[in-house]
Amino acid sequence: MENFADRLLGKIQEMKSPVVAGLDPNYDKIPDCVKKNYKSVGSALFAFNKGLIDALYDIVPAVKPQLAYYEMYGLSGLIAFKATVDYAKSKGMIVIADGKRNDIGTTSEAYAKAYLETLEKDSIAEDPTMPVKEGAFDCDALTVNPYLGADGILPFVKLCEANGRGIFSLVKTSNKSSGQLQDLKTESGLTISETVATLVDEWGASCVGKMGYSSVGAVVGATYPEEAENLRKKMPRAIILVPGYGAQGGDARSVSVNFNKDGLGAIVNASRSIMYAYKADKRAGKFTEEQYALAARDEAAEMSKAIMAAIS
Amino acid sequence: MENFADRLLGKIQEMKSPVVAGLDPNYDKIPDCVKKNYKSVGSALFAFNKGLIDALYDIVPAVKPQLAYYEMYGLSGLIAFKATVDYAKSKGMIVIADGKRNDIGTTSEAYAKAYLETLEKDSIAEDPTMPVKEGAFDCDALTVNPYLGADGILPFVKLCEANGRGIFSLVKTSNKSSGQLQDLKTESGLTISETVATLVDEWGASCVGKMGYSSVGAVVGATYPEEAENLRKKMPRAIILVPGYGAQGGDARSVSVNFNKDGLGAIVNASRSIMYAYKADKRAGKFTEEQYALAARDEAAEMSKAIMAAIS
Repeated sequence: MENFADRLLGKIQEMKSPVVAGLDPNYDKIPDCVKKNYKSVGSALFAFNKGLIDALYDIVPAVKPQLAYYEMYGLSGLIAFKATVDYAKSKGMIVIADGKRNDIGTTSEAYAKAYLETLEKDSIAEDPTMPVKEGAFDCDALTVNPYLGADGILPFVKLCEANGRGIFSLVKTSNKSSGQLQDLKTESGLTISETVATLVDEWGASCVGKMGYSSVGAVVGATYPEEAENLRKKMPRAIILVPGYGAQGGDARSVSVNFNKDGLGAIVNASRSIMYAYKADKRAGKFTEEQYALAARDEAAEMSKAIMAAIS
Repeated sequence: MENFADRLLGKIQEMKSPVVAGLDPNYDKIPDCVKKNYKSVGSALFAFNKGLIDALYDIVPAVKPQLAYYEMYGLSGLIAFKATVDYAKSKGMIVIADGKRNDIGTTSEAYAKAYLETLEKDSIAEDPTMPVKEGAFDCDALTVNPYLGADGILPFVKLCEANGRGIFSLVKTSNKSSGQLQDLKTESGLTISETVATLVDEWGASCVGKMGYSSVGAVVGATYPEEAENLRKKMPRAIILVPGYGAQGGDARSVSVNFNKDGLGAIVNASRSIMYAYKADKRAGKFTEEQYALAARDEAAEMSKAIMAAIS
């Protein structure tokens, strides 16, 4: 089983792009030209995502579906989530499930199995009332929350090792109130986010790949570049997943501090700015609603270019 | 819309039981006599839960399905989750979804809609490939993780107010490594869990019910009674959800510190010790596998009695 960090970085190098496209579809915001062809929310969400994946898979290494946007639509939404994961993988993309899952012991193991394992098919006979028989969600990586300490993280790390998967632990989030806990200085002299960064480095020691990076990565928001520079040093082997680009205010320069000198070590997420690129002021008159995927490709290419320029 | 804290406490008083039964079904552990009648994992999980609910609904106020155990079985598992939530509610039980969800802004809103709102039915025509059309999971309450600060919690609080629902924020968890972050002392002199307890009190101020308790509750593990006593004082209006009873080592005495002098203010969860009570050494020879639900009722009644004795 190839190491996740090696797989992800290989794909980034192949595409010359450290961009991950967030797939956070809000039914109310997706184009009517997509919706009108489908009879359920779930089918429309998947069709929208499929359009984006078809337009992005040869220029962007990874997608990051945000589970909240699928859970919001119940089972119909989760059917779309599963279809999206499977389709993105079939096109060769790396799939990072953004679920920020957290629990302890056997419950963490259950989450790890849900997202980081190819389960066997049900061995029992078919039941027509149950639509899917092939196990759980089988992604390449999952975001996790470190509040419960090692007991909450190590069950995930175990499956990262066994199955060539990855996790990204929250360290410093992009929102305004992230400092309420994350910036508090503790008796050791480190803040909470610095403490977590140190733990991420420790948790990831067992799954460092050939390229020197670990399958245990970190989430560090694009909106706090000074802190990001400091956190980067505390976890040199972690791949940093950087949210907050575009709609949340981060730009190519502010995310560049997350990269190491080798030009690697970070992957930058944008969701709304890619998904709804056809609506952006800077593209006014250039793309119709029907061309939303083409506009997304345009935005992703522009974003890749801007980041590659900022880090070279 | 009646306040969640009032609804939950009313139910606890009616049942004379502060017990919440965890529904964390592991397919490999559920009795063969249940499994053999069903053709899919999801159907078997729901049948097992239904047996437990039927045996508990008139003596226990609430159930707490742990989402990880349903997500682990993919869509089939989530169909069982939804069926379990709906069935428990139909029997008058309060349903606390244990998902420890966390995110920011519109994404937190999406999670809140997924679990704390009755969504409208899809207005579009029926699609036979989509099994469920009536929105998302519609529980009474959800557990949440505070690592992202107020931005991550207030979108949930908003729906608690609007829809008469509740949340329980992690404060101090029951596991061994919970202290890695939660026990760290910060410059204010408070530990992280104490800081979160203070925030929980603040976040819950807007949804205090007639009985003086807030719909914003807290999770404090049964395994750290000294800390629980201290945390209780920092959030006097919070209903404390106490995991760790039974299988994890907490007992009636250790959980009693979470209750206020009015005999209210906490709800104690047990999962494995109730679900698999028929296998317990202390019941050897008393219950067959077929009587798993009867054994669960026995254990839940015993647990209620022990806790009521310890707090009176």
